[in-house]
Amino acid sequence: MAPDSALTSSPAEVGEEMEELLRRLYPICRSITGDGLRATLRLLGDGLPFTIHEVPSGTPVLDWEVPDEWNIRAAYIERENGERVVDFADHNLHVVQYSMPVDRVVPIGELRQHLHSLPEAPDRIPYRTAYYAKTWGFCVSEHQAAALTDPFYRVRIDATLAPGHLSYGEMLVEGAVEDEMLVSVHCCHPSLANDNLSGMVVARALARWLLARPRRLSYRFLFIPGTIGSITWLARNEDGLARIKHGLVLSCLGDRGNLSYKKSRRGDATIDRVASHVLKHCPAGHKVLPFVPYGYDERQYCSPGYDLPVGCLMRSPNGTFPEYHTSADDPAFVGREHLADSLHTLQQIVDVLEHDGVFRNTSPKGEPQLGRRGLYRPIGGQQDAAEYDQLVLLWVLNLSDGAHSLLDVAERAGAPFQRVKAAAEDLCRAGLLEPALPVADKP
Amino acid sequence: MAPDSALTSSPAEVGEEMEELLRRLYPICRSITGDGLRATLRLLGDGLPFTIHEVPSGTPVLDWEVPDEWNIRAAYIERENGERVVDFADHNLHVVQYSMPVDRVVPIGELRQHLHSLPEAPDRIPYRTAYYAKTWGFCVSEHQAAALTDPFYRVRIDATLAPGHLSYGEMLVEGAVEDEMLVSVHCCHPSLANDNLSGMVVARALARWLLARPRRLSYRFLFIPGTIGSITWLARNEDGLARIKHGLVLSCLGDRGNLSYKKSRRGDATIDRVASHVLKHCPAGHKVLPFVPYGYDERQYCSPGYDLPVGCLMRSPNGTFPEYHTSADDPAFVGREHLADSLHTLQQIVDVLEHDGVFRNTSPKGEPQLGRRGLYRPIGGQQDAAEYDQLVLLWVLNLSDGAHSLLDVAERAGAPFQRVKAAAEDLCRAGLLEPALPVADKP
Amino acid sequence: MAPDSALTSSPAEVGEEMEELLRRLYPICRSITGDGLRATLRLLGDGLPFTIHEVPSGTPVLDWEVPDEWNIRAAYIERENGERVVDFADHNLHVVQYSMPVDRVVPIGELRQHLHSLPEAPDRIPYRTAYYAKTWGFCVSEHQAAALTDPFYRVRIDATLAPGHLSYGEMLVEGAVEDEMLVSVHCCHPSLANDNLSGMVVARALARWLLARPRRLSYRFLFIPGTIGSITWLARNEDGLARIKHGLVLSCLGDRGNLSYKKSRRGDATIDRVASHVLKHCPAGHKVLPFVPYGYDERQYCSPGYDLPVGCLMRSPNGTFPEYHTSADDPAFVGREHLADSLHTLQQIVDVLEHDGVFRNTSPKGEPQLGRRGLYRPIGGQQDAAEYDQLVLLWVLNLSDGAHSLLDVAERAGAPFQRVKAAAEDLCRAGLLEPALPVADKP
Repeated sequence: MAPDSALTSSPAEVGEEMEELLRRLYPICRSITGDGLRATLRLLGDGLPFTIHEVPSGTPVLDWEVPDEWNIRAAYIERENGERVVDFADHNLHVVQYSMPVDRVVPIGELRQHLHSLPEAPDRIPYRTAYYAKTWGFCVSEHQAAALTDPFYRVRIDATLAPGHLSYGEMLVEGAVEDEMLVSVHCCHPSLANDNLSGMVVARALARWLLARPRRLSYRFLFIPGTIGSITWLARNEDGLARIKHGLVLSCLGDRGNLSYKKSRRGDATIDRVASHVLKHCPAGHKVLPFVPYGYDERQYCSPGYDLPVGCLMRSPNGTFPEYHTSADDPAFVGREHLADSLHTLQQIVDVLEHDGVFRNTSPKGEPQLGRRGLYRPIGGQQDAAEYDQLVLLWVLNLSDGAHSLLDVAERAGAPFQRVKAAAEDLCRAGLLEPALPVADKP
Repeated sequence: MAPDSALTSSPAEVGEEMEELLRRLYPICRSITGDGLRATLRLLGDGLPFTIHEVPSGTPVLDWEVPDEWNIRAAYIERENGERVVDFADHNLHVVQYSMPVDRVVPIGELRQHLHSLPEAPDRIPYRTAYYAKTWGFCVSEHQAAALTDPFYRVRIDATLAPGHLSYGEMLVEGAVEDEMLVSVHCCHPSLANDNLSGMVVARALARWLLARPRRLSYRFLFIPGTIGSITWLARNEDGLARIKHGLVLSCLGDRGNLSYKKSRRGDATIDRVASHVLKHCPAGHKVLPFVPYGYDERQYCSPGYDLPVGCLMRSPNGTFPEYHTSADDPAFVGREHLADSLHTLQQIVDVLEHDGVFRNTSPKGEPQLGRRGLYRPIGGQQDAAEYDQLVLLWVLNLSDGAHSLLDVAERAGAPFQRVKAAAEDLCRAGLLEPALPVADKP
Repeated sequence: MAPDSALTSSPAEVGEEMEELLRRLYPICRSITGDGLRATLRLLGDGLPFTIHEVPSGTPVLDWEVPDEWNIRAAYIERENGERVVDFADHNLHVVQYSMPVDRVVPIGELRQHLHSLPEAPDRIPYRTAYYAKTWGFCVSEHQAAALTDPFYRVRIDATLAPGHLSYGEMLVEGAVEDEMLVSVHCCHPSLANDNLSGMVVARALARWLLARPRRLSYRFLFIPGTIGSITWLARNEDGLARIKHGLVLSCLGDRGNLSYKKSRRGDATIDRVASHVLKHCPAGHKVLPFVPYGYDERQYCSPGYDLPVGCLMRSPNGTFPEYHTSADDPAFVGREHLADSLHTLQQIVDVLEHDGVFRNTSPKGEPQLGRRGLYRPIGGQQDAAEYDQLVLLWVLNLSDGAHSLLDVAERAGAPFQRVKAAAEDLCRAGLLEPALPVADKP
């Protein structure tokens, strides 16, 4: 996985690399702090210009403070004869995240108050958290819950919750301008593959791809624990927020569902238009969803005091697939071809952000004579005369009046941006088009 | 029916009271002037701070003048043997309103030119008027018309049309501010229950409810004859029109149809948004209709020289139900539960107008930590995590940036205003929200 | 066909006249230059104040230059025994337009590279052009192509391509104001009836109709070769373009399809609203199409350097009917009743452009008392009270506040402009309405 493999790998190879990394990351028990999170960040940053920040517990961050660090070594439920019936060593979802340490024999009635299961999906272990609740608990399959019939059980959680640090990863891939696109992924979930190991490995692959090519924009990648991570980063980076012109939260990018884009709070930010455009031209179906103040870290970036232009790209959105937040969200639920398709879509979004611009038709009175420049077919009269590429050429000429960007042209023409960009390049070469303004300066 | 019963009566009791008053008003022969109208106004104003205005015939009012006063004592069609075959004493719809006095024996051919019936509804007596036509006429069932086979009949209408007064009722329920909501009902129809005894009794019940509670806005109730009444009131009250910020014409509020709201001429007045919002969240279906310059007194309030923000609330709109303007629009056509539902809807509309306002999130950077304030559940990760009330809290926080009112939040969140208001109250108590501006001052 | 027959002819007679002229024009071999085009212009201008302009070959026009003039006398494909198997004398579509002269015996393989046929429509001869390609070719039916089995054929095209002139016709029908409506038809197609002899004869009939009546606007008719003709005219008339307030390209107006209007590039020009309104009230269905930079001469008028408010009126749009650009687009494909209906629609469009205006209600406070002016029926109360014409009167009164034109009223009321205009005339006569501004001066 040398960085330059990004230039030479085929989509299938990149899909395979992403899946392989996902499978390596899967067994690690992550949380919003702790050694599992640190190990994950180290793997994600391997070979990349990646900084791991450590913020001390107790640091005030906006309305919150950085919590104590939680680390867990072992946890189980034993029968009085020592038989382990539930063991964190088998699956790290078995323990409610941020459980307080416990080592007691408890009556079954008390134990049941600390058990979480899914009656509607009896084979699956749910994912539960109690970051700020000072309690403990186990998550079990419904079958496991039903098998707990003894009067007493020993419960043990060997965990520490103590002052330490909150860790997050950050990487700036600099471009020609200071304007930034923010790419943010949450890294706090334990063994859950789609939510959000898929986001992590796709973000890493995107960063590698960007590092290997010229860039106009700068790209800032954040690998953070959900909620408290974005709040911490926002609190520490207020001075730089004005540089963020576009942003995406990435999650659930490996399942077989079609792509979904959830708009930023603004609803009409450039990223909203660009992502909607790219998804519209996906051969599979897609969904564009309105902003709601629930979901992932876009909740923080889009809070009214910041209102950053940050949307969220997913395949199946959070909460809409039955495997969500259960042990069924495992590596088998994720497909390398879906990871590759998600990456490809992100690359197209980047391509629009990099290359959109306003051009000016240098021969705006009447149509220029395309035929003598080899841009129009010689024999006229055919019924299907508005051949697609020729029509895109005509759209670019017609709308390049200094007021429409290439993305405007693509939307009006109903053509993918790529095609419009190619037509603009042909016209520039023929001297019929010249750049007016990059889109950021669109009047 | 003491005023304070409004505070203690259940909806069912208020529905029963409205129905009872409607049945008392039903037999009275009202018109656009006269003693029947006066008797109606006295019953409606009983126990309320109600003024009955009397405007002399001949008074110029806008493009019109107040007509002579019409009073009718008796009217019938007799066979030559003295047998009465049509009698106003049986039903006051039998006489065309504003018929001139007549006492003659007429050949059947002439009589037929003064008869109105409904071939398509042979059991029903139609409602007809001739306010400005100097004619006379009888309205009869098709069966009655068919039975008129004698060569001659005596027709007698013992009525007077002479200088007198036009009467209307007016009541101002003052609030903390001078801004007014206008509630206008026409009281000129004789024995027709849905159109518009229902509007009268619902308006009276609304006034009683308002009198019993604190109010920000002032509420002006008009009980007027249709068209000429609103024209007369407008002509006499031009100085006060600027205080009218919202208005509703009420009619047809007792039938079993779903609620309908017809927008004001402006189409985007606050009352248009508020009524549309409240109806959208009715459990039954509803209709929002565009303005048309036909219907009830909103025609006058929405004439271009005034263009007041006055819409019209109905159940089945005028002209859309077969009982409309016939003897079948009787008390049995009206249900107390429909009257109560109409009142309840009006109370919800008032509630939005009273309580909408712009709030400001006091912790707008990131989400405030709701958990430590008891506003967020302690165990995270559930699939249905966006519980409804919690999501409304998040919407209020997210949009309370000084530019969105609670109604804006409700519309964007797709939640009823009541729920949004409750969330805002919780957040105010927690110190996370503070009032910015009342909605009237929204920038 | 004296000009004043336009005043006295019935629609059926005008339809017949149009069809007759179309049949006379059909056999002429037109092209973008040449004697066939000149003969066509002379017939179209017969008896009308029509100017035929001649622009020399080589004249620079915008990005183009006027091409050499092409004239053809004969063309055929012969077997070596002298049997003619394809002959231009049979159908002038048999030769690719602007074919270079040729007189050679060629092997069948070479000939096939110069043959155009339609495998999917084996009976039809296609229409092909090679204006700027310096080649030659024959268009044949698929049956003719299949029958060419000899090893060698003699091909002869007796044509000249030499400096000469580009011809076009122009006629200004002056009105009271200098503001112009442009009517542009392409006249360059050889024996094709719907595209665009139909446009030529309908435009001529419209001009005759306009000449016979008073006019507010001036109307400029252009009979031009496609593309190069409008480019030439634009290049020679830049000073006058500011006078063009509305414009229509006419084509394909004789087939049985419903009417289609393709919007101007602006999309919201007055002509776009007017044509959409008139088509909406056609009893048959209709289509309103968005602008695309392909089609007829609207491509030139709507190029970004001009952006004139010019749309395109058609029945079946170019390329959407199987007869398009084939020998099946012959006079039998065109119906006189469709020509007459197209003309009638154009007359209605002109009527709106001539008569739209802003009026002011002279009695804007409340409704004026229509009854005493004979504009309201005397007996009230009927269920169908909103009789259509009465409602249109009320709409005109309600919206005539100095901000809405009659077309605005028609659109809001959902009524045809004609009806609204008639109501406005009634109200003007009653003194209840007065002109405020012609629509061109609408604020």
